[in-house]
Amino acid sequence: MRSLSETPLVRDGKSIILAHDHGLEHGPTAFSEVPERLDPETVFEMATHDAVTGFAVQKGLAETYYPSYEDDVNLLAKLNGTSSLWMGEPYSPQTCSVEYALELGADAVGYTVYPGTNREPEMFEEFRTVQEQARKQDVPVAMWSYPRGQALKEHRKPDVISYATRIALELGADIAKVKYPRSGDAMATAVDAAGDVNVVLSGGSKTSDYEFLSLVETAMNAGASGLAVGRNVWQRDNPERILDALEAVVFDGATADEALPE
Amino acid sequence: MRSLSETPLVRDGKSIILAHDHGLEHGPTAFSEVPERLDPETVFEMATHDAVTGFAVQKGLAETYYPSYEDDVNLLAKLNGTSSLWMGEPYSPQTCSVEYALELGADAVGYTVYPGTNREPEMFEEFRTVQEQARKQDVPVAMWSYPRGQALKEHRKPDVISYATRIALELGADIAKVKYPRSGDAMATAVDAAGDVNVVLSGGSKTSDYEFLSLVETAMNAGASGLAVGRNVWQRDNPERILDALEAVVFDGATADEALPE
Amino acid sequence: MRSLSETPLVRDGKSIILAHDHGLEHGPTAFSEVPERLDPETVFEMATHDAVTGFAVQKGLAETYYPSYEDDVNLLAKLNGTSSLWMGEPYSPQTCSVEYALELGADAVGYTVYPGTNREPEMFEEFRTVQEQARKQDVPVAMWSYPRGQALKEHRKPDVISYATRIALELGADIAKVKYPRSGDAMATAVDAAGDVNVVLSGGSKTSDYEFLSLVETAMNAGASGLAVGRNVWQRDNPERILDALEAVVFDGATADEALPE
Amino acid sequence: MRSLSETPLVRDGKSIILAHDHGLEHGPTAFSEVPERLDPETVFEMATHDAVTGFAVQKGLAETYYPSYEDDVNLLAKLNGTSSLWMGEPYSPQTCSVEYALELGADAVGYTVYPGTNREPEMFEEFRTVQEQARKQDVPVAMWSYPRGQALKEHRKPDVISYATRIALELGADIAKVKYPRSGDAMATAVDAAGDVNVVLSGGSKTSDYEFLSLVETAMNAGASGLAVGRNVWQRDNPERILDALEAVVFDGATADEALPE
Amino acid sequence: MRSLSETPLVRDGKSIILAHDHGLEHGPTAFSEVPERLDPETVFEMATHDAVTGFAVQKGLAETYYPSYEDDVNLLAKLNGTSSLWMGEPYSPQTCSVEYALELGADAVGYTVYPGTNREPEMFEEFRTVQEQARKQDVPVAMWSYPRGQALKEHRKPDVISYATRIALELGADIAKVKYPRSGDAMATAVDAAGDVNVVLSGGSKTSDYEFLSLVETAMNAGASGLAVGRNVWQRDNPERILDALEAVVFDGATADEALPE
Repeated sequence: MRSLSETPLVRDGKSIILAHDHGLEHGPTAFSEVPERLDPETVFEMATHDAVTGFAVQKGLAETYYPSYEDDVNLLAKLNGTSSLWMGEPYSPQTCSVEYALELGADAVGYTVYPGTNREPEMFEEFRTVQEQARKQDVPVAMWSYPRGQALKEHRKPDVISYATRIALELGADIAKVKYPRSGDAMATAVDAAGDVNVVLSGGSKTSDYEFLSLVETAMNAGASGLAVGRNVWQRDNPERILDALEAVVFDGATADEALPE
Repeated sequence: MRSLSETPLVRDGKSIILAHDHGLEHGPTAFSEVPERLDPETVFEMATHDAVTGFAVQKGLAETYYPSYEDDVNLLAKLNGTSSLWMGEPYSPQTCSVEYALELGADAVGYTVYPGTNREPEMFEEFRTVQEQARKQDVPVAMWSYPRGQALKEHRKPDVISYATRIALELGADIAKVKYPRSGDAMATAVDAAGDVNVVLSGGSKTSDYEFLSLVETAMNAGASGLAVGRNVWQRDNPERILDALEAVVFDGATADEALPE
Repeated sequence: MRSLSETPLVRDGKSIILAHDHGLEHGPTAFSEVPERLDPETVFEMATHDAVTGFAVQKGLAETYYPSYEDDVNLLAKLNGTSSLWMGEPYSPQTCSVEYALELGADAVGYTVYPGTNREPEMFEEFRTVQEQARKQDVPVAMWSYPRGQALKEHRKPDVISYATRIALELGADIAKVKYPRSGDAMATAVDAAGDVNVVLSGGSKTSDYEFLSLVETAMNAGASGLAVGRNVWQRDNPERILDALEAVVFDGATADEALPE
Repeated sequence: MRSLSETPLVRDGKSIILAHDHGLEHGPTAFSEVPERLDPETVFEMATHDAVTGFAVQKGLAETYYPSYEDDVNLLAKLNGTSSLWMGEPYSPQTCSVEYALELGADAVGYTVYPGTNREPEMFEEFRTVQEQARKQDVPVAMWSYPRGQALKEHRKPDVISYATRIALELGADIAKVKYPRSGDAMATAVDAAGDVNVVLSGGSKTSDYEFLSLVETAMNAGASGLAVGRNVWQRDNPERILDALEAVVFDGATADEALPE
Repeated sequence: MRSLSETPLVRDGKSIILAHDHGLEHGPTAFSEVPERLDPETVFEMATHDAVTGFAVQKGLAETYYPSYEDDVNLLAKLNGTSSLWMGEPYSPQTCSVEYALELGADAVGYTVYPGTNREPEMFEEFRTVQEQARKQDVPVAMWSYPRGQALKEHRKPDVISYATRIALELGADIAKVKYPRSGDAMATAVDAAGDVNVVLSGGSKTSDYEFLSLVETAMNAGASGLAVGRNVWQRDNPERILDALEAVVFDGATADEALPE
């Protein structure tokens, strides 16, 4: 088993994953403020930014656009997903096999799990299969670990986020992508609960440059290994500016203040 | 992976797909006005028209009649379907394997997906398997992308149709077959949301020649790559006349007025 | 693919299938008037009658008795079935694999499908697998096409029976076994809807010789390719007499009057 | 296919199967009167009695104790089972594969089916797989055929037991194990309905020596091929005495009176 | 089949299994009193104690930390598990395949079964597959046999625990891990019901040193083959002290009094 740190997804132990699966998960309305970004090529271009160590997309985008970007972008193939048209019990069906992801040139694979939901058992079993196939092929596995379900009214409660990162460790993920648990201390506990698994902050919906970078700064100080960011990059008018700043905070240890150009 | 444009399903980047799966989906009552068309041979004859770049039928019709038409017709094997006798939650079971479709001589395969329904997850997973098998065999995949379900009262709402085409892109289809979203602008957005995937208009139930051709003209102007048409051809007394006209509008850029003979 | 007419199941394009799956579907009470027929050997004997082109039984009867009859009887292995003790939503589980049916010497296979029920999708998928395996082995497939379900109060409505035969065509059956749709005209439409698929009348529960033969005569005149008959043969005191008469009506074009000995 | 009569399970066409799956089906409370029999070795010893042609146990007992008894005992591996702690709809999951049963040295396999329950279809399908695997390996298959379910208030009604034996015939079992249908006449009908399948009486809960042997005598006179007995042997203080008597009734045609020592 | 006593999991017929799957089953709050133990390395260290014959963890911990401990620790790979965020009907999905467990160096595998719950049948079937794969690879199988479900208000009732150990025997486990049935006599019956299967006591939640050791002493006197312990070791400030004492009670037959240092 190759260690995660030997893969291109990580640089100096840290990662910035640009996520662009919103076309499936949220639908085209996510692009209503930036309609030109409906063209996936515009976001693939962002993924060539030096700050980005991995680009997370569904199979269809990878098939169509990745051949032109494989020299400049590390592909993190997202292997499951669902539309927001669907109102059922939270669940995310598999949309791409590990084998096919590798044919597409994936450097890593990603899988969403919703612990606490009625279908937690199915998702654990499906994650198992994907994880073991990925191990056989020696590609790292990122778990989008998002507890949900009726028993969980607060998805960002510190205990819930620690549980989320621990599940990633126990089930054999290399990277745990989790929501921010509302404080740096809680983030630190979540990082501890993950053992040697890299914890990356989930970027979430768009906020101001300063607010967003401060959040990332806090997470990094709490021991996070970076972040996975989507809307906070590609919904911005100037994605390069925020990627420059994220690079400074994540890889160079800058504060939000230092990272933001005047 | 062979590009879609290299396949016979597309001519100059455009397609007219003659669909004839109504025997299964609607039943013989769909033929009540044109009882002689219950004989599938009459519709296979229409598919030899030069305008038609692909003929979409279920396995049984292909088995029985395609051997006599394989030189003149490009087969798009429809791989799932259901009867209208069935009143369950929208779902379409697989009726033909990719492997068998290829033995029948299929040039492409088609699969219906109903995003937004309770069984969206199953359909996404089944589409995945079919899509990856088709990739292995280098045949293009058309997705009948038809959002439905209780949360969707308006199946032709612009946002819904854009989501439908985007799902086709994200899940790895080559062609997205969608309903008309009520305006050319909405169609243009749906085309944008599809990225490099070809969007074809679903012909729907029979209307007048002019009304139908105008719709196609609008869709083509909005960037559609053609249409999939069934009842508007084979329910007509003179299918050749409408196929001639469709050829003019889709391949030669004619207006509905120009395309219709006096 | 071998054409159905080249198989022993058909003679001059027509078939008389003797069905004897009632032990499973109806139980031993179906034999209460003819208790000696509980011994399957008595019915195997009837199947050696020249009129019979195929004998439809479940795997267990075929295993036990067919070895003594394989020279004189063409075996149509029925591959699914259920008991009438079971009161669930109509469904028929698979009781024999295609592979094993062939080891037993089957000349053809038969599968029941209940379009319109909650489990139509499963049955369509299971039929697909069976049909494709049968194609690979070059044995014909008969579909018992029996629409049912809550939306169908009248199972013999003309439109429903036409739909039943069409489903057999669309899904790739060679023979459609359907109930009588109450009139010769409706039967003719059902035959048209089936395209090149052979439609055979389902014999149903026991009636008088004349009534039964008249029904068969009407069906034949409407274009049916024969019948599948069980109780109307093996529940009779003199099965040979009715088989002689059926032979006359089905293969020699006799009327019911002509076929019945004084 | 080897005929059942060539297997060690049958002697002169008859069988006495000692069943000892009660540890799973009923739990240790079944042993409360004979606690020393919790040790499976004590019951394996009984199975060495000359009367016993087959010993039916779950995989775990076979693994642990059969290696010491394989010269003296014919193993009938019971392949499914459930606990009585479970209160769900009657169903019996598979607990041992055919392949593994053969590795354990099984001479035959046994499978419980509950016709009439909501899960009849699943059990028929699972029985199919097991039966076909057993055929491939040439080991006989015994069906525990126990109709149940909400529609069946009387599990021992004559019609129900005849249906039970017929299902065993239709689905391809070699032996049908059924409850006693309350009279010798009903038993005779059940034997008729089974065709060439051997019908064995299910011993049931413990009764007096005479009552039990009379029941067996009646069943044998009705054409049964023996019995499967558990509690009426191993719950007795003197199992050898009853096994001697059973041997006389089943194999030597003795009456209950003759068989019982003074 | 290798006998359990030849495997490293057992010493002189006895075992102390250190269990550390609480990160998944209970979540990080189980560590709130001993936050430094969130680091799995601290518990792997405990597993090197001479008293410990097997260390039970989920796949993720084994992958990350076992490579450094494989010389000093015998790995019992726990193959299923669930989070306590999930509130569904008791069930434990498979999280690791037998094949992968062996690649990780497992000396034994463990599987939880919940007899009496609605999903007992699924768990029995899944246990079957795991057990047979383990037999093929010659690694022992421990069953966490925990009856639950609505019909069981008292999970520790003597009859229930005896049933639990018997199920382990019947289904082919080598070790049965069960809760304490409230008395030494009941434990002795449970040991009897297990036949040749080793019964180990489940340690349960943390109690005082003396209380815990007395419980173990009683279980050992009742014939138990040791215990599986988690929180009563790693939630203690001084795990070594309790492991020393457990070693004395389990392997050297010391009483709780003798085993506890002043």
